[in-house]
Amino acid sequence: MNIHAKRIKDLQYLLKQNKLDAVVLARKLETGFLTGYNQENVFMLVSRTGAWAFMPKMLLEDFKDKVDFVDASAPDSILGAVSLKVKELRLKKTVFEPETETYIRGNTWKTKGFAEYRGLTSSLRAVKMGEEIEILRKSCRIAGKAFGLIKPRIKTGRTELSVYRELEDIMQAMGASGNSFNLIIGFGPNSALPHHETSGRKLGNNEAVLIDYGCVYENYCSDITRTYFHGKPTEEFKKVYAIVAASQKAGVAAVKAGVKTRDVDSACRNYISDAGYGQYFIHGTGHGVGLEIHEAPTVNTKSEEVLKAGMAITVEPGIYLHGKFGVRIEDSVLVTKTGCEILTKV
Amino acid sequence: MNIHAKRIKDLQYLLKQNKLDAVVLARKLETGFLTGYNQENVFMLVSRTGAWAFMPKMLLEDFKDKVDFVDASAPDSILGAVSLKVKELRLKKTVFEPETETYIRGNTWKTKGFAEYRGLTSSLRAVKMGEEIEILRKSCRIAGKAFGLIKPRIKTGRTELSVYRELEDIMQAMGASGNSFNLIIGFGPNSALPHHETSGRKLGNNEAVLIDYGCVYENYCSDITRTYFHGKPTEEFKKVYAIVAASQKAGVAAVKAGVKTRDVDSACRNYISDAGYGQYFIHGTGHGVGLEIHEAPTVNTKSEEVLKAGMAITVEPGIYLHGKFGVRIEDSVLVTKTGCEILTKV
Repeated sequence: MNIHAKRIKDLQYLLKQNKLDAVVLARKLETGFLTGYNQENVFMLVSRTGAWAFMPKMLLEDFKDKVDFVDASAPDSILGAVSLKVKELRLKKTVFEPETETYIRGNTWKTKGFAEYRGLTSSLRAVKMGEEIEILRKSCRIAGKAFGLIKPRIKTGRTELSVYRELEDIMQAMGASGNSFNLIIGFGPNSALPHHETSGRKLGNNEAVLIDYGCVYENYCSDITRTYFHGKPTEEFKKVYAIVAASQKAGVAAVKAGVKTRDVDSACRNYISDAGYGQYFIHGTGHGVGLEIHEAPTVNTKSEEVLKAGMAITVEPGIYLHGKFGVRIEDSVLVTKTGCEILTKV
Repeated sequence: MNIHAKRIKDLQYLLKQNKLDAVVLARKLETGFLTGYNQENVFMLVSRTGAWAFMPKMLLEDFKDKVDFVDASAPDSILGAVSLKVKELRLKKTVFEPETETYIRGNTWKTKGFAEYRGLTSSLRAVKMGEEIEILRKSCRIAGKAFGLIKPRIKTGRTELSVYRELEDIMQAMGASGNSFNLIIGFGPNSALPHHETSGRKLGNNEAVLIDYGCVYENYCSDITRTYFHGKPTEEFKKVYAIVAASQKAGVAAVKAGVKTRDVDSACRNYISDAGYGQYFIHGTGHGVGLEIHEAPTVNTKSEEVLKAGMAITVEPGIYLHGKFGVRIEDSVLVTKTGCEILTKV
């Protein structure tokens, strides 16, 4: 059975387990996850025993050529056809996922009598398995390797944007299809902005360099951040860097199946707070990574999720001194029963 | 006044005109359009006389540095702060835009007593003005020019993906920051799939080549499609090509301020139907283009919108013969009082 057909089976098992009759899905991310067919405007109905896809006419032939394990049609009214099928099969408890729906579409489902139900596909997506893990590893390996290639080329006078372009090319040359988000290249004080928009600023002598980047490889995202000092580091930079590095190490060491994600956050945060920089760590510690650059689980002070073997998360503490510099160190890691595997090895 | 401050004024004018007190916005597209600050998770409240932005702590300093015409804060509870401000200012009729909201966020606004109201920001965005037009022209000029550069390089044996990469590089070398969507490069029968996913397929002798592409330049998207025959065209290809070309010409000729978008669709569609290929034109004629690759207005058989000077739309009829070849010809055009300006000149 191919990986997508197996995912549909897994979803059907979840339906049974949760006493649901069917679920409707309409976002490319979910329908692509279940079919391997990555196009917008494909609607799916998955019951405990069947799976149907409804789409615009212009996609039908292509879909049929590529997906032989889902019943496909291109009705004039897609929403009407979904409803009809639900009635025909007497699927009483049909649900939609509030977290994947737009306001308009979600309310359309509600009008049709479908109920909200959270976490079906996101829990399937959070735990990676089989060939998916290999693909994610490759995505992270490309990103990790790129750092060693780009670093020696970042010289005084180069702009952030020129580094952005070259880094992108380096990853594509290794097989990446694109960037997993808008890469953040921050020189000097720009490194202190966690979501800095890469600019035409040139690198001066003796400045911090922060690179937060990742690629997409066969639809899977990688995420990594490295910070270093270009030139002779100041005492303050050395001190802050050492704190963030130790914090990140503590976070990675805390990762293990069965651990709450907020305990991974604490491991990072406590270290930074104890060192007196708590107020400068102004974001959560991490997030799941996979088909989306940000997906389940969340890793912050409030998150209640428990790590499972096969989840992939980032661990990325940082300290940001506005107007001066920032340091963030981030790896993507794969949760295992005994700890974790660092995927973004440099 | 800078362009963003002016847009906020325009939105405030629309609020007054529609007898509304305020609108809440939470999507990057809209908050970026109104502030020039393009980051996720910035929430805005715009009343008839004021504008407030609420965001995570990690964005605040950066936002303040870049946007001096909006009151900015980073409260612990962003949604709480929005509500409090609405109460404080006694903004009775506060609305949200259903078409820009996620299911969860939209319902949160509803719970807070805000009402649905459509089309405020999309109507502002649909009509391009001032420097925005110059930027869009540049985006389309880059795309148009790229065709002449890539075409002579598409030779027998090259893969669709290698053309994708080179086209991307060509546009970036001219200043584009990226692609405006997943470029569609279809060789042979792949040209008959309107949403073909560019693949490793190699170009053979005597095959159709369809290239649907565009770039992002300073956040503005361009969109263009060209089809041609690599080698000696068959009679059937020549015939179909001539029909699509004439249909597209008829569509462009129909564009003018005051015209209904569905009449532009008819102009294209009637031509193809009259030639006997109506059943093979399996999609709408076009869409608005700007900050998004697909935005208001829609141009299809059902659309009720009326063209205004300053709107930018695509005109892109096509005929698709499954298993054989497809022909689509597309330009992005700027609507004027007397007709239109073709933006994607090759």
